[in-house]
Amino acid sequence: MNMTRISENRTILPEPTIRRLPWYLSYVRMLDNQHVEYVSSTQISKELNVQSSQIAKDLSFLNIRGKTRIGYEVRSLVTELEDFLGFNSHHDAVVIGTGSLGTALMQDHGLENYGLNIVAGFDVRSDVIGQCVGGVPVYAIDELAAWQRQHGVSIAILTVPVENAQEAADLAIASGMTALWNFTPYRIKAPEDVVIANTSIYAHLAIIYNRMHKTSVETKNG
Amino acid sequence: MNMTRISENRTILPEPTIRRLPWYLSYVRMLDNQHVEYVSSTQISKELNVQSSQIAKDLSFLNIRGKTRIGYEVRSLVTELEDFLGFNSHHDAVVIGTGSLGTALMQDHGLENYGLNIVAGFDVRSDVIGQCVGGVPVYAIDELAAWQRQHGVSIAILTVPVENAQEAADLAIASGMTALWNFTPYRIKAPEDVVIANTSIYAHLAIIYNRMHKTSVETKNG
Repeated sequence: MNMTRISENRTILPEPTIRRLPWYLSYVRMLDNQHVEYVSSTQISKELNVQSSQIAKDLSFLNIRGKTRIGYEVRSLVTELEDFLGFNSHHDAVVIGTGSLGTALMQDHGLENYGLNIVAGFDVRSDVIGQCVGGVPVYAIDELAAWQRQHGVSIAILTVPVENAQEAADLAIASGMTALWNFTPYRIKAPEDVVIANTSIYAHLAIIYNRMHKTSVETKNG
Repeated sequence: MNMTRISENRTILPEPTIRRLPWYLSYVRMLDNQHVEYVSSTQISKELNVQSSQIAKDLSFLNIRGKTRIGYEVRSLVTELEDFLGFNSHHDAVVIGTGSLGTALMQDHGLENYGLNIVAGFDVRSDVIGQCVGGVPVYAIDELAAWQRQHGVSIAILTVPVENAQEAADLAIASGMTALWNFTPYRIKAPEDVVIANTSIYAHLAIIYNRMHKTSVETKNG
């Protein structure tokens, strides 16, 4: 993996900033497709409902300057955002747990557009071991450590059942993986130098349910 | 849909609290499976790496009290959390965009354990319209408004390509849907009374990439 470009560019950003940057990227990519040449932070603000001062601040982390009264050059902004977010680089990953979600990720070639290349899956089920999913081979979980010694992949995507989450994480870490993308609702414990990103889709469901009933509760309380 | 129970229990929670509650739930579910009867906030704190004062505060939103020196009754905590989060209730939803992610969600019966029941998919591709995915029928997107008039579903799951995100959202809202679970990286604009939950998996990838290179940057800066 060639990480040079990333390491040179990289500073540790506040998480809210990292969460907003992909919004800007998807918007300016769209403008770029429409052959728009310049965009102002005011325009981005209006489109994405983020304060323009916040946008200017977020974009100040990048090697790009807006021009007075013209704004940012769209094409440069796309490239800078992609580079900065690491989407233009190549990151290998394995999927641990090839159930429906794991399989979907292995088949989702959209992830490649964001720099993620899934190179292997691992599972305990004998009916999937030895098979290929979306062109990606599935191995027995017992082979993970040995496989990893050969391939040295950094990112493990955890899509195991929740009760196996910690065990799978421990195995990935013991095998030398340094970043875990945790799709289970389990709060994984790991050494501090291991990167963990939690994509807890069930928490988002709870947010939807909670917010949906806002009106009835407000009425009740009001 | 019977929402009575939810409406009665529901208060609008801070998002960080709603994000932590499913962690507690998955942990106490595990204890319940191991026939553990009581758990203290100190014990949850140690296991999940959340401060015990924070846990006590989060759980104070629920109709449950811990007992001094014994803690919370595990079985009651499981039920209260499930009820409170809406996971014990039944929420119908449709998937708009039956690509690899949409299909995975339609096949993921795990979601049913969290109260979500996907009853239909919608797409523009003639090869999937009229098919069933995971037992769920797929219709033409043009039929959404008419279908919705008959079925009155509140939740739309958006798994369309990013460039169609706003259009799909507009259509869902115009059809009377009130909650959008947005899996695209696009920042959707909607009226204030529409609930939007963004599960932007690409933002999480950016966070992983950014944090992974922490060491090299720190070395450079140090």
